[in-house]
Amino acid sequence: MQVSDLGEFGLIQRLAAHLPSRPDVVLPTGDDASLVDLGAAALLVATVDALVDGRHFLRAVATPEEIGHKALAVNLSDIAAMGAEPLWALVSLLVSPATDVALLDGIYAGMAALAESFAVAIVGGNVVSTSGPLTLDVTLLGRVQQHQAVLRSGARQGDALCVTGSLGAAAAGLQLATSDDLHIQISPELREAARKSLVSPTPRVREGQILARGGAVTAMIDISDGLAADLGHLCAASGVGALLEVERIPVHPAAAQVAFARGQDAVLFALAGGEDYELLFSVPPDGLDAALRMVGEVGGEAHRIGTITNSAGTLGLKSGDGTVSPLDAAGWDHLRAAR
Amino acid sequence: MQVSDLGEFGLIQRLAAHLPSRPDVVLPTGDDASLVDLGAAALLVATVDALVDGRHFLRAVATPEEIGHKALAVNLSDIAAMGAEPLWALVSLLVSPATDVALLDGIYAGMAALAESFAVAIVGGNVVSTSGPLTLDVTLLGRVQQHQAVLRSGARQGDALCVTGSLGAAAAGLQLATSDDLHIQISPELREAARKSLVSPTPRVREGQILARGGAVTAMIDISDGLAADLGHLCAASGVGALLEVERIPVHPAAAQVAFARGQDAVLFALAGGEDYELLFSVPPDGLDAALRMVGEVGGEAHRIGTITNSAGTLGLKSGDGTVSPLDAAGWDHLRAAR
Repeated sequence: MQVSDLGEFGLIQRLAAHLPSRPDVVLPTGDDASLVDLGAAALLVATVDALVDGRHFLRAVATPEEIGHKALAVNLSDIAAMGAEPLWALVSLLVSPATDVALLDGIYAGMAALAESFAVAIVGGNVVSTSGPLTLDVTLLGRVQQHQAVLRSGARQGDALCVTGSLGAAAAGLQLATSDDLHIQISPELREAARKSLVSPTPRVREGQILARGGAVTAMIDISDGLAADLGHLCAASGVGALLEVERIPVHPAAAQVAFARGQDAVLFALAGGEDYELLFSVPPDGLDAALRMVGEVGGEAHRIGTITNSAGTLGLKSGDGTVSPLDAAGWDHLRAAR
Repeated sequence: MQVSDLGEFGLIQRLAAHLPSRPDVVLPTGDDASLVDLGAAALLVATVDALVDGRHFLRAVATPEEIGHKALAVNLSDIAAMGAEPLWALVSLLVSPATDVALLDGIYAGMAALAESFAVAIVGGNVVSTSGPLTLDVTLLGRVQQHQAVLRSGARQGDALCVTGSLGAAAAGLQLATSDDLHIQISPELREAARKSLVSPTPRVREGQILARGGAVTAMIDISDGLAADLGHLCAASGVGALLEVERIPVHPAAAQVAFARGQDAVLFALAGGEDYELLFSVPPDGLDAALRMVGEVGGEAHRIGTITNSAGTLGLKSGDGTVSPLDAAGWDHLRAAR
């Protein structure tokens, strides 16, 4: 059996099945980040994510600084989804001896700039030589008070389902970067916004922290695989279902324009696109207004896009005319041969 | 300028020059592991190390379980060199879709077995697809009391210089694994001991912890680049020099046999071989006996091999006849084109 037969999620599940634990492990692999008990009601939050040249970043589209930014941003997004404060990063670099040092200077400058903007220290790392593609593997550590950590598993029937920002711009950026169709009609501003979303996403760290401190949010996940797939993960962990209202999904205008130009449905960019790095969260109805207001207080925005249901594992999509169609949660799975 | 012009250490120094810090960072990059302040006099210890197929492990020589063992062992060795207790590991896997899942099952089983033997939990990880070689990037976290952490930088003139175990077996194992000379005369037992040292090193976790708790050890480093190179690192960090006594260096019998068969000097296997993952430490003369006894108490052994001098940056090698020759600290530098 090959890795491609299992797919990314299947492989992770298989490899994680027999890992040793300790009594101080609060939450092992399976959420956005892991939680371990530091004592005194504080939890250490840990996550690791690798970016591979040509797969997670495209040198033709991104500057070196943007590549470095993204390598840290995807990890900040995972820490944000736990409601935690990011603190310390370790950077493991896999590099070919022929690599131009100026590229690495730029990558580290981009990483350092984003780290500073969130008061994160880069405390260590490693460099090894490889014959493979340039790879940046970043481990990010953070801290959260035990009672404030937000897992994927707390969503309950009747909770409002919300998302920060808007969705689909990264997917639009990827289509613009890789499509053969050079004549997609889109304004230069939206073209750049889509590119920027793809290569230099903004992690919703402040949004995640204020929502966690507010105490009302029941479950949270960051959208890296696409709204449908990550909603599927949240619902599976919580043992619930969800009903999305299609007209409420905040589609980024760049996704709308690219979809229109290509004769596609813009909502698909939001549902299946991935790499948005927005936060998807659930909150009981009586906490909804306060939660949306809190996100506004830190300069962000959030919208209600649906409701948590008791149909475990079932995702539905409600159109404007009230009809409900089933939603497939299969998002991106880079290791699976067939989709 | 290419990466190969700088070399591994030059590149690390350059990239680490402008990294953001925080007030709670006690020791950033530059030692075996990083230290950050958790409050209540406890420090979090963090290290990351990547193993690349064909470079840090050889599938023709090592079983999958041994590959997994080594991926964690090299990190345990770094935590040991700080005198810390290893606690939590995150595993980042870079894998080609065509990889046989059975190989990964074995790798993770080997990693899990070693983790369990040191009560380490594997709390998270990541899997990404790559077109490059199979790579295991392990982040290991541990904890140490602030006053017990042992850095590279505390060695003082007159301190005894000691090493755990014996040296050169991994280098002998590498020669046996990669040499064209299939007729090296060596017993099957020593051949297997050399192979085992190369593919499945034993991290000196208990030795490092008991030495740190004893309180007398002034500096410690693990030997990954070779005795000469790592002694050079320890002396540079401490602003001292060292005089090694060649007849005291514990050369592994497998290294002695391979060296003899190839007409080489066995001491070179210990000085320049690398990948021994033994601990090199300094201790004031009045703490020497207690330190050597402590290592024995946890089932290990340690030997005095020299003395710390006040000739900053100068390493000397004293032969049996009393003559002293200068020692070149340049060890392995995988990224540098010319040695």
